[in-house]
Amino acid sequence: MRPFTPQDFAVRRRRAAAQARAAGLAGILVAPGPDLAYFLGYTPTAVTERLTMLVVPAEGDPTVVVPLLERGDLEQAAGDALAVETWNDGDDEYATASRLLAPDGRYAVSDSTWALHVLGLQRRLADARFVAFTDSLPMLRAVKDAEEIGRLAAAGAAADAAYLDVLGLTFSGRRERDVADDLAQLLRAHGHEHVDFTLVCAGENGADPHHEAGDRVIAEGDMVVLDFGGLLWGYGSDTSRTVHVGDELTDQEREVHDVVRAAQQAGVDAVRPGAMCQDVDRAARAVITEAGYGDRFIHRTGHGIGTTTHEPPYMVEGEERLIQPGMCFSVEPGIYLPGQFGVRIEDIVVAFPPGSPDGAVRLNTSTREVQVVA
Amino acid sequence: MRPFTPQDFAVRRRRAAAQARAAGLAGILVAPGPDLAYFLGYTPTAVTERLTMLVVPAEGDPTVVVPLLERGDLEQAAGDALAVETWNDGDDEYATASRLLAPDGRYAVSDSTWALHVLGLQRRLADARFVAFTDSLPMLRAVKDAEEIGRLAAAGAAADAAYLDVLGLTFSGRRERDVADDLAQLLRAHGHEHVDFTLVCAGENGADPHHEAGDRVIAEGDMVVLDFGGLLWGYGSDTSRTVHVGDELTDQEREVHDVVRAAQQAGVDAVRPGAMCQDVDRAARAVITEAGYGDRFIHRTGHGIGTTTHEPPYMVEGEERLIQPGMCFSVEPGIYLPGQFGVRIEDIVVAFPPGSPDGAVRLNTSTREVQVVA
Repeated sequence: MRPFTPQDFAVRRRRAAAQARAAGLAGILVAPGPDLAYFLGYTPTAVTERLTMLVVPAEGDPTVVVPLLERGDLEQAAGDALAVETWNDGDDEYATASRLLAPDGRYAVSDSTWALHVLGLQRRLADARFVAFTDSLPMLRAVKDAEEIGRLAAAGAAADAAYLDVLGLTFSGRRERDVADDLAQLLRAHGHEHVDFTLVCAGENGADPHHEAGDRVIAEGDMVVLDFGGLLWGYGSDTSRTVHVGDELTDQEREVHDVVRAAQQAGVDAVRPGAMCQDVDRAARAVITEAGYGDRFIHRTGHGIGTTTHEPPYMVEGEERLIQPGMCFSVEPGIYLPGQFGVRIEDIVVAFPPGSPDGAVRLNTSTREVQVVA
Repeated sequence: MRPFTPQDFAVRRRRAAAQARAAGLAGILVAPGPDLAYFLGYTPTAVTERLTMLVVPAEGDPTVVVPLLERGDLEQAAGDALAVETWNDGDDEYATASRLLAPDGRYAVSDSTWALHVLGLQRRLADARFVAFTDSLPMLRAVKDAEEIGRLAAAGAAADAAYLDVLGLTFSGRRERDVADDLAQLLRAHGHEHVDFTLVCAGENGADPHHEAGDRVIAEGDMVVLDFGGLLWGYGSDTSRTVHVGDELTDQEREVHDVVRAAQQAGVDAVRPGAMCQDVDRAARAVITEAGYGDRFIHRTGHGIGTTTHEPPYMVEGEERLIQPGMCFSVEPGIYLPGQFGVRIEDIVVAFPPGSPDGAVRLNTSTREVQVVA
């Protein structure tokens, strides 16, 4: 994997400017976090009340607004090819930033821009309009290039390798959080520089899609939902598998797992030329509804992934945008039976990559059959 | 230290509602992060594009808006005494939230609320007005109660203990990042559950106030700025000391360190009844300016600390609010000589605690004299 170059970031900024023009925007305003990492290759030490913002106008050259005392960090990370405007403690940073903006322009801002900052700009520029990326240019980072897909594939393969190792662990008699700690270590051992989450949800806890991992002791006979991911070379992994402790599955456990597996396959198969994002959700949901569990599938079917583990495109009813080549997203249906157990199966897929122009390719390839653990 | 109770959080919410009424606000909107931890005792797994928001109206009962699939986490952490409104993927979460708001109300929102969310509410409620906490109720969390001060004191004492241990480490011949790793371990060993930052800035790197710690090898004769902190029982530590490798300080190194130490003392001494926040900055800055280094002190003198390590009140020119009993903040002047070295000395202080009604008490008590390391 070659490192991203200043040219890569410049290409991304030019593409964003073109998208802004096409959308009738005066430009985009990029906040620290995954967006700034994507467009500038710079991540400040901390996201704080101090304003750092990349201004990419629809026409003309970008400028970075940065606190004076972080200018050195910025230039060390991103070079000095970009124009920089600094402000110092006690200055009005919104005056500094607003001088770079059209007073009556419409700007797209990073979703995670602090309200402090966007409201500060609104105060200064009463006639400007601001709208979040997700609501104006949601697909700004959605289509991945070959270098990005390579990183996502590497992250997926590392997560799969960690899962294989996990199958050799002892579950029975240990707390969820102990298995979660092991899983985090395995993700790191397989190359993740950062672990975002390691959900281990045993028995009835599996019925809560966002249960993390607690003191519950895992027991023989438990279904256990595993959902884990992190960053590798700056790009995310996110996969889920549901395992069983011991080989005596009930008929219901087997049936629910089969339904979810078929639903996940249907979701992946729905990635066809001309398909909308919501079609993936509909296809997976149809299988689950058909089986009588429609009201137990209580979340959307998927989300995009890249420099974050949750980003557009969302595979959800109402998302009518077309799936485009290079989009990478999760397909993760689940069934949740309160008080009993849950099942979720999740892979990251890439849509229409070279060699598969008509469908999706999974970036997670570990078996989706229910695995038995000790 | 006793755990915070649901009653503690309820008291904080009632105080916030009273402050909102006094400021002519219709209420406050609290986002995940330190604000939500402070007002509800709940921290979601991750801050994401999914809206979680505590609505505390100026009059009436608070309500939490939460994604359906995180309701269980919320109730586990915060109990079920509060009203909860859930929304599900595919719903319009801003419709859900805006039903709790007055259509023409003025609301204070957490600084770190995502732009996605505040712009989503603006779209729904064109006649409502939103303003960030820092701009409307900056002192919402600024005055700490006895339980909070106890936690900050414990965090400060732990940071001091880590510093004492650091003085026994070998600096010379090791990279900044190696010392930084040791420092992080020591903070954990002394009780921090989370390490926020361990800056180790040798020689010329000390002249950059936000340099972190890199591959530079520390050498005999270096001045080294150490700035470190994290969370203990949910409350922050943040302290800086500047040490010297070997005992042969130049006259300039000694002079600059003496000036910064005197400036820091002057800043602490400026905490008197009737003093404004900017008086702390002015007092420290006057000492440095007097000594001829005024243009080398390139940041504000301090910031509040609590459930975050940077929060109001800010000790900065223009901040004319009075220092109130129970405010906790840093006093951290510095001098930065590009290409040479830097010196910063920082303590957290509490203003006018019981027993010291006329001044500040340091929560860091390790020596501020320049220490020699090997």
